[in-house]
Amino acid sequence: MAQLSGIINELQALLGKRLSLNKSIREQHGQDLTWHRGAAPDAVAFARSTQEVAQIVGLCAAHDIPVIAYGMGTSLEGHISAPFGGVCIDLSGMNTILQVNAGDLDCTVEAGVTRNQLNEHLRDTGLFFPTDPGADASLGGMAATRASGTNAVRYGTMRENVINVTAVMADGTVIRSARRAKKSAAGYDLTKLLVGSEGTLGIITEVTLRLYGIPEAISAGLCAFESMEGACDAVILTIQSGIPVARIELLDELQVRAVNAYSKLSLAERPTLFLEFHGSEASVKEQSQRFAEIAAEFDGSEFEWATKTEERTRLWSARHNAYYAALALAPGKKGLSTDVCVPISRFAECMARTREDIANCGFTAPIVGHVGDGNFHVLLLVDMDNEAEIEASKAFLDRLARRAIAMDGTCTGEHGVGTGKMKYLPYEHGPALQVMRQIKKALDPKGILNPGKIIAPETD
Amino acid sequence: MAQLSGIINELQALLGKRLSLNKSIREQHGQDLTWHRGAAPDAVAFARSTQEVAQIVGLCAAHDIPVIAYGMGTSLEGHISAPFGGVCIDLSGMNTILQVNAGDLDCTVEAGVTRNQLNEHLRDTGLFFPTDPGADASLGGMAATRASGTNAVRYGTMRENVINVTAVMADGTVIRSARRAKKSAAGYDLTKLLVGSEGTLGIITEVTLRLYGIPEAISAGLCAFESMEGACDAVILTIQSGIPVARIELLDELQVRAVNAYSKLSLAERPTLFLEFHGSEASVKEQSQRFAEIAAEFDGSEFEWATKTEERTRLWSARHNAYYAALALAPGKKGLSTDVCVPISRFAECMARTREDIANCGFTAPIVGHVGDGNFHVLLLVDMDNEAEIEASKAFLDRLARRAIAMDGTCTGEHGVGTGKMKYLPYEHGPALQVMRQIKKALDPKGILNPGKIIAPETD
Repeated sequence: MAQLSGIINELQALLGKRLSLNKSIREQHGQDLTWHRGAAPDAVAFARSTQEVAQIVGLCAAHDIPVIAYGMGTSLEGHISAPFGGVCIDLSGMNTILQVNAGDLDCTVEAGVTRNQLNEHLRDTGLFFPTDPGADASLGGMAATRASGTNAVRYGTMRENVINVTAVMADGTVIRSARRAKKSAAGYDLTKLLVGSEGTLGIITEVTLRLYGIPEAISAGLCAFESMEGACDAVILTIQSGIPVARIELLDELQVRAVNAYSKLSLAERPTLFLEFHGSEASVKEQSQRFAEIAAEFDGSEFEWATKTEERTRLWSARHNAYYAALALAPGKKGLSTDVCVPISRFAECMARTREDIANCGFTAPIVGHVGDGNFHVLLLVDMDNEAEIEASKAFLDRLARRAIAMDGTCTGEHGVGTGKMKYLPYEHGPALQVMRQIKKALDPKGILNPGKIIAPETD
Repeated sequence: MAQLSGIINELQALLGKRLSLNKSIREQHGQDLTWHRGAAPDAVAFARSTQEVAQIVGLCAAHDIPVIAYGMGTSLEGHISAPFGGVCIDLSGMNTILQVNAGDLDCTVEAGVTRNQLNEHLRDTGLFFPTDPGADASLGGMAATRASGTNAVRYGTMRENVINVTAVMADGTVIRSARRAKKSAAGYDLTKLLVGSEGTLGIITEVTLRLYGIPEAISAGLCAFESMEGACDAVILTIQSGIPVARIELLDELQVRAVNAYSKLSLAERPTLFLEFHGSEASVKEQSQRFAEIAAEFDGSEFEWATKTEERTRLWSARHNAYYAALALAPGKKGLSTDVCVPISRFAECMARTREDIANCGFTAPIVGHVGDGNFHVLLLVDMDNEAEIEASKAFLDRLARRAIAMDGTCTGEHGVGTGKMKYLPYEHGPALQVMRQIKKALDPKGILNPGKIIAPETD
């Protein structure tokens, strides 16, 4: 609080009641849903415009006060924690859809617009925004954390789907990272630099996104396998064959059990793929036939179809609730989600060795994955009062991250670094981490933007 | 030459005969094929390995000597000129294909491998690398300049197709920008930062590229239109309808005349679209039928098919030779290629106003474009001995760049900045240019990497 004293009057003059010093509001803004212990900011500013964000950052910059951007608070690696105090800027009130350019298949929204809000708005245009991390996250937050999700295998992640951003830089300058042309060779790619920078290089206040035509036909379905190996091999061959599957999600037998209990389904409790195909009627049919042939090679069950919208919605909401379903396996425990991603050719091996590790540790740890991208999540259920369990979990995390990195993969496919993954970056990036540090220092010399995330603050 | 004196012995010890001080070799390495007047480097180093590049850069860094990366010399905006002298590092000898991971649909090559060499090598794998800027450029150079070309409309540009790079940074450090996983949220996107940085932030020595399955069926063809407006409107509707066309290239009537003369064809001298469809037999048929319906709406001719490989090759080599065909319209004149790119919804308007401008100026200036991306090239034919013509051309360029930028487009869709487009960047990027300058200064504090390109050297 002490560090705020120099600017509190100015912040209040600027924001009035939209500046909160309330303890529970501050605490709620510093703590995500995960096991990471968050720290509360000294104040929460509910911003309404890019200009206002620029003014807040300008004030904070002049007094070396940290600024942490906050969207919907759905990130998973401690991104929103305020270990050095400062001002949290809550952007959820910036929720205007500024422009839909149907002819260009793009739209521009304020950072606080959520993906469900956008898709609701687009409903009558025949267009949709695909990126779907599960939670109804804000699009600014999704850009800042380079989110992806179930259909990234077909439509890409926020890396591919953000055309440009408006951002407030560390000195309060407002920039637009690129124009709206589909391609450009005009200098450094600031869009991609800001996407995934987690509020450490600039605060994203507007995003221009790529939209897609709603496919003429969609079919979804399930396919259960005798073994995890069979399921993995079917995924690998599906991807290698170039079938443009829109979603291909793997749940292990424990996760299927959890989903059955939580979503009142009665699926066979075996490793199961949830799939979705998009395209013309003919193409969807062709894709699913080709998949069925592959599945049969690996002892997959008959492919169970769900062509009706309600059935599809029921299946996918079961998939989307996998995290909560898994938590319900062990009430009172905290969920700890891993997020490795490896080249698809290494996927089966990475999965097998990880399941062996889980079995050896005796963890309750269901697995769900965006397996078409080689990305999967182990959800460790941890008793936070049991030191030994916490230590064993951390050691498991460490082994898993290093295993994936050794396979030319990454410690985080989509959750981001936050505070949780910082320790693996030296191992993953080697000397490239120093380049990231140089960029951070150049664009935020005082280290006020979301300090303590991605790049450790300099201690000298 | 004087500035080399401190390191010449060490360079010679390192490279032997692979260090050239020969005047014509130096001049050839500083001058591209365009109207830009190049400056020769003081020496040309023919490097053989990343380690060697690192040693050369390290030596140059210690003595504040500029380093300019050179691939095949096919860039178009003065990228390879050495206005401050220094050492040109010719990477064409680094031409080993290091790894093809067919299962992961990727490969890793040294920077000097050309795209034709790679596709030749891949021929028996069923895979190909799509990005095709026309010239047989080096893949390192294509990455460094964010190249694209005729099939970017379907397969993306180097921005989408580079998975990671190995690069030598300004102090001689070697980094790898990312791992090989399909997606990652592990910190700043150094890959995309280096792609398109034109050797000003680091020298790319290896590239990992995304590969694609050779489509089961390919059909190509031509469609001539009564008017340029009709052709443009047909393109716009094709893109907006989501037809996944692999190539859709527009030639205006003058360019068709040039192509006829140069490639001995007898096409109708009208605005013409060259198209290509990729997919399964059924999908290719469906795509071309849908396109034919759209073309008919805008007075397009019957779509002329070329399904045989030889016919297709003949058509596309005519398209690829468009630049030389255009030059042949006015022997002795230099070609000056513009490169604007606008959102597709503004494309027809941008084209119409540009053609009006050409007519008003009385230029001989054929047009060819990757119009599915909203990108087109006006090829001005300029008598370099005629000051008035040069001045009029520069003024035209200026109007065109500003027109595209005002339509939320860019002054360069794919050729890059080099020295030629620097003057438009303030207008295109506004305050974001200062962020680029901060990054340049942080990663290359002495300004030795390709100085005078993208970001003007500081004069204070």
